[in-house]
Amino acid sequence: MRLIEIDDVRDAAQVIEGEVVRTPLLRADESLWLKPENLQPTGAFKLRGATYALSRLSAQARRAGVVTHSSGNHAYALAHAAARYGTPMVAVMPEVTTAVKREAVRARGAQIVLVPAAERESRTAALAAARGLTVVPPYDHPDVIAGQGTVGLEIVADLPDVDVVLVPVGGGGLSAGVATAVAALRPSAKVIGVEPALAADAAESLRTGTLCEWPVAQRARTSAEGLRGSLSALTLAHLRARLDRIVTVTEDEIAAAVPWLAARGRVVAEPSGAVATAAYLHHRSALPPGRTVAVVSGGNVDPAAFAAALRGGEIRDGAQRD
Amino acid sequence: MRLIEIDDVRDAAQVIEGEVVRTPLLRADESLWLKPENLQPTGAFKLRGATYALSRLSAQARRAGVVTHSSGNHAYALAHAAARYGTPMVAVMPEVTTAVKREAVRARGAQIVLVPAAERESRTAALAAARGLTVVPPYDHPDVIAGQGTVGLEIVADLPDVDVVLVPVGGGGLSAGVATAVAALRPSAKVIGVEPALAADAAESLRTGTLCEWPVAQRARTSAEGLRGSLSALTLAHLRARLDRIVTVTEDEIAAAVPWLAARGRVVAEPSGAVATAAYLHHRSALPPGRTVAVVSGGNVDPAAFAAALRGGEIRDGAQRD
Repeated sequence: MRLIEIDDVRDAAQVIEGEVVRTPLLRADESLWLKPENLQPTGAFKLRGATYALSRLSAQARRAGVVTHSSGNHAYALAHAAARYGTPMVAVMPEVTTAVKREAVRARGAQIVLVPAAERESRTAALAAARGLTVVPPYDHPDVIAGQGTVGLEIVADLPDVDVVLVPVGGGGLSAGVATAVAALRPSAKVIGVEPALAADAAESLRTGTLCEWPVAQRARTSAEGLRGSLSALTLAHLRARLDRIVTVTEDEIAAAVPWLAARGRVVAEPSGAVATAAYLHHRSALPPGRTVAVVSGGNVDPAAFAAALRGGEIRDGAQRD
Repeated sequence: MRLIEIDDVRDAAQVIEGEVVRTPLLRADESLWLKPENLQPTGAFKLRGATYALSRLSAQARRAGVVTHSSGNHAYALAHAAARYGTPMVAVMPEVTTAVKREAVRARGAQIVLVPAAERESRTAALAAARGLTVVPPYDHPDVIAGQGTVGLEIVADLPDVDVVLVPVGGGGLSAGVATAVAALRPSAKVIGVEPALAADAAESLRTGTLCEWPVAQRARTSAEGLRGSLSALTLAHLRARLDRIVTVTEDEIAAAVPWLAARGRVVAEPSGAVATAAYLHHRSALPPGRTVAVVSGGNVDPAAFAAALRGGEIRDGAQRD
């Protein structure tokens, strides 16, 4: 299996410049910097991969249109990027998708097709075939991984002597891309994935060397909706080659990281966006020492749930990251 | 009275590069961008002016030390900058200053001197004379104004065709600096100050052409603690020459802007930091049309108060901006 390389990430960086926010590093304490990807126009790093993936389509394919079956941050990002390119987009969403999530995608001009949850993938494939649309998956694609890798490129550019990069792991697109960039540009730094303990299938996949997929009902228990996805063969291959390890965090640790990020970083993070910071705050002894960057991957969270989290209550992501 | 000029702001920009966060512009809707100065290490734009003012002292003066009578964001910023320069610092604070505010300054190595509120200025002057310390005021100084002006420089660099810049007005350091930079670099753009209606002494000063100082008890009614200060002769002179006008916002409008910034910008704003956005949201008809930037000047807010604001409750700044 061909892995992406640093030149792919560099190419992505050139393409997306001006289309995504060049997020700064924010120093949060003596050895922690935040990479606030929640500041992207669609509230998550997903815009990087979606933008680069669209740029790589032929002009004809872009005119014909794209389709995805995400109902969360990837759909939102792809709709945003498609609008920029003038590319028609269809989002296949489960009928249970909340009105808020549908509206965010529809507001950017995408067509929504509501289907029973179990038919998402089959209907997506059928639509792609019938209408000549290109499927842009949320993480299982080299261009998407290369686009997300620009996060790592920017981290090393801004903090050349970084020692540790903590990155959330859901489907593995972000972590695969960041690990690729950091391994090439700062080989001595460790890229460490962070997963909720309730959805630690990537950790198990890395341990066993084979793709493990936990039952959906089991993964559904984490507040970090965006990290419920499972690795693909492609992302697993990248992580096996380039990730140092995975650490897991509890729901309480995630819940504590959200108000910490609001107070110390003055940023709004969704639970999925807070797991890397949670690892730093609660698992320092399990991490290498040194200058550490935590990727705050997204900030799409229901305001009432966010307010409750600040008071120590429960919190769930406002949009799935897939 | 000599006003600062664009070259002063350019010099400040060179000096503070690497010492402050180069904040990006965040697009919040079709015609609004946010300049999130709450992302600075001390949670507010004040670090710019404090850093530049310190850099302009002689090496001897920096060794001798600095003093200020701020109890809020300026003291916090000056303590941070002084620590970077290895400069001793004394913060003269009213005895009523909360432990949280004192601790933030003390944690950066500054000495705290608690005095009765009415004696702040006299004790500051006495300390300066007795110990050979330089007073670094929060806004009434050309170097502080030039440092804050770098916000305007960056806005024009990132959005060269900006039409309107909305900036909070307290003591007038930020608005004077931003108006200076924008007037020089993008003369067709309008820089508009925003004040709480409950502390609209700057608006009155501009209208009458003379320094108006509202009674402290009157100004104390606004939730935007950082904007309770009054202009100085120096800041008034800059604003008369370079500011287009001032608009005022109500407490309800400020309270509504805080959760809007959390949801749309994924940033934590204190009430003072939200007034420019409040003007955009509630006073569009009073503003020129076009590409608009709202400066989110700070994000130091008590977490419980912030949570209440997200639920539509009351909110007050966590640190005064002076």
